[in-house]
Amino acid sequence: MVKVVIIGAGMMGTATAFPLADNGHSIHLVGTHLDGEIIRSCKKRHYHPKLKRALPQGVHPYFIEEISDAIDGAEVIVSGVNSLGVHWIAKTIGPYMRAGQIIIAVTKGLEVDPRGNLAILPDIITSELPASVSALVKMAAIGGPCIAGELAGKRQTCVVFGSRDKATAESLAALFRTDYYHVFTTSDLVGLEYCAALKNAYAMAVGMAYGMLELSGGVDEAGANGHNLAAAVFAQSCLEIHRILKTITASQSFALGLPGAGDLFVTTNGGRTSRLGNLLGAGHNITEARQIMIGDTLEAVEIIRSIDTALPNIEKNNQVKRDDLPLMQAMIDVIVHGKPAAIPFEKFSAYS
Amino acid sequence: MVKVVIIGAGMMGTATAFPLADNGHSIHLVGTHLDGEIIRSCKKRHYHPKLKRALPQGVHPYFIEEISDAIDGAEVIVSGVNSLGVHWIAKTIGPYMRAGQIIIAVTKGLEVDPRGNLAILPDIITSELPASVSALVKMAAIGGPCIAGELAGKRQTCVVFGSRDKATAESLAALFRTDYYHVFTTSDLVGLEYCAALKNAYAMAVGMAYGMLELSGGVDEAGANGHNLAAAVFAQSCLEIHRILKTITASQSFALGLPGAGDLFVTTNGGRTSRLGNLLGAGHNITEARQIMIGDTLEAVEIIRSIDTALPNIEKNNQVKRDDLPLMQAMIDVIVHGKPAAIPFEKFSAYS
Repeated sequence: MVKVVIIGAGMMGTATAFPLADNGHSIHLVGTHLDGEIIRSCKKRHYHPKLKRALPQGVHPYFIEEISDAIDGAEVIVSGVNSLGVHWIAKTIGPYMRAGQIIIAVTKGLEVDPRGNLAILPDIITSELPASVSALVKMAAIGGPCIAGELAGKRQTCVVFGSRDKATAESLAALFRTDYYHVFTTSDLVGLEYCAALKNAYAMAVGMAYGMLELSGGVDEAGANGHNLAAAVFAQSCLEIHRILKTITASQSFALGLPGAGDLFVTTNGGRTSRLGNLLGAGHNITEARQIMIGDTLEAVEIIRSIDTALPNIEKNNQVKRDDLPLMQAMIDVIVHGKPAAIPFEKFSAYS
Repeated sequence: MVKVVIIGAGMMGTATAFPLADNGHSIHLVGTHLDGEIIRSCKKRHYHPKLKRALPQGVHPYFIEEISDAIDGAEVIVSGVNSLGVHWIAKTIGPYMRAGQIIIAVTKGLEVDPRGNLAILPDIITSELPASVSALVKMAAIGGPCIAGELAGKRQTCVVFGSRDKATAESLAALFRTDYYHVFTTSDLVGLEYCAALKNAYAMAVGMAYGMLELSGGVDEAGANGHNLAAAVFAQSCLEIHRILKTITASQSFALGLPGAGDLFVTTNGGRTSRLGNLLGAGHNITEARQIMIGDTLEAVEIIRSIDTALPNIEKNNQVKRDDLPLMQAMIDVIVHGKPAAIPFEKFSAYS
């Protein structure tokens, strides 16, 4: 039995408690300052109101003010905050971290570092930890297609755990693996995190395609839907993810496999990223769409902004050109420049 | 204006008439002996009962008995029959073919040739044409994500036209291209046709994943669906398609792009292949599923049988091993050996 602390009681962080609990581990679930209502419900009724499920046996809920009790003696810390919370979580857990602990992040995103390069969130966390321990704490992250509500429902799920130290990924996998949570491992943490972030951006593009159908009057009298367009955008997305991955020499199986095509597939099946795309495709500009979705964290927006900011450096290194990413550029036009949504068919990939 | 004859008045064959008509071509639509009812409706009301749409202006319907009038002087012949009809169509149009004509096939499938190797359907058609013209007729085919009803509804659609002679693919593209039908071209006809066939097989696997959800009681009280599993199967499908394509040295962009991931994505959105997978996933064996779907052409079944038959030769050439295709093997077990559906998670691709 291992003591695991989950920081962030949102849906994905909490969902990881289900396989952990089934494996008999001791789980301390710490809400952030935004999760007060959730933790109150968890303490009072042992019920998670967003997941709409009872917490598993063996999960102990804590308010953020109780973090020092919760985190004491933990071997593994799950970072369950969203991409906007990574700096906060590093500063919050920093004082409690000690050598040999492992942090595994469910957070998905990419930030731009001070030199204008893309940085993965686990590295951001590491950089914010106290210097005395930052090199002694092992970082890992989870990629692959996983809707939190399905994991909590113990639906069959395949994910990839990444850590630069493969043994760390393997040891984590052994803690989490159940007959419904199938964990593969990789040492390519960077490639995994690029996929996890990029799939949000491109899922927005697929959502835009479906939104455009609405704009043109919706499903017609003979039942014609917009799947052809969505599929074309999906395919272009896979190609562009692969091109971006090549700049970091990630395994090509990532774009085709669970971290790329798999995670993109699941993310197009609803959720806030799809909804944002729908609104943009249906003719709203980004300001209007943000207003309609006020209160929602829009990871796709942050990721597209980060890519736009980092592209000059990426181009300088001759890795990939902006013109090689026409769909990404179309999203940058929408998100950064406030333009109406449009699909650049004429720039889509040619086949030899 | 070019004279185009479409043989086979099913949904996909007929749908190609819409962009052709918008480009002002003269289109003769010839029903097979199975399409009598459709052609009667087309002649009487200029209405296609399966597409649930009026035929475009410039489309002239013909019964199969009228083929000699219909085909006279055609520059392009669209093969709109299904995979079971390729031998028939070659024999039927053979007497009318002359040098310089182009046949473009919408048909998707793979057959096993007498030596036990996989053969693409355009090559089957060529082999069945009279020897006097077979080398003088140019063959092409259409791949990429295209639901017929959406094309007929003039929804935005991206496809790939393939011909070993790239100029043939380009000249066809020029006839078909409209502002809603975006045609890319490739000289890799074999790769394109492999994708078109394989995506049917793997779409059945994704359908199986969704069917398994039904078997386990459907969406639960907290709303947990089966998208995680479907996405994992989708990702494994992309990886296996890529592995099979490597045996014929197809461009890697095919598995990621419109012919692979794109076409697989659209095919998982309903249709008879998904339905077959759903039935198998929900616990029916192949005999029961066939009985429930009596009258439907089940291309996936034929393709999976073909792969199973050809695999010994493929393995002999050291191209790919059966063990590299665990999902395909699981489908072979269901379709060929009558076993219950199962997902071989433990054999899914590892990441380095």
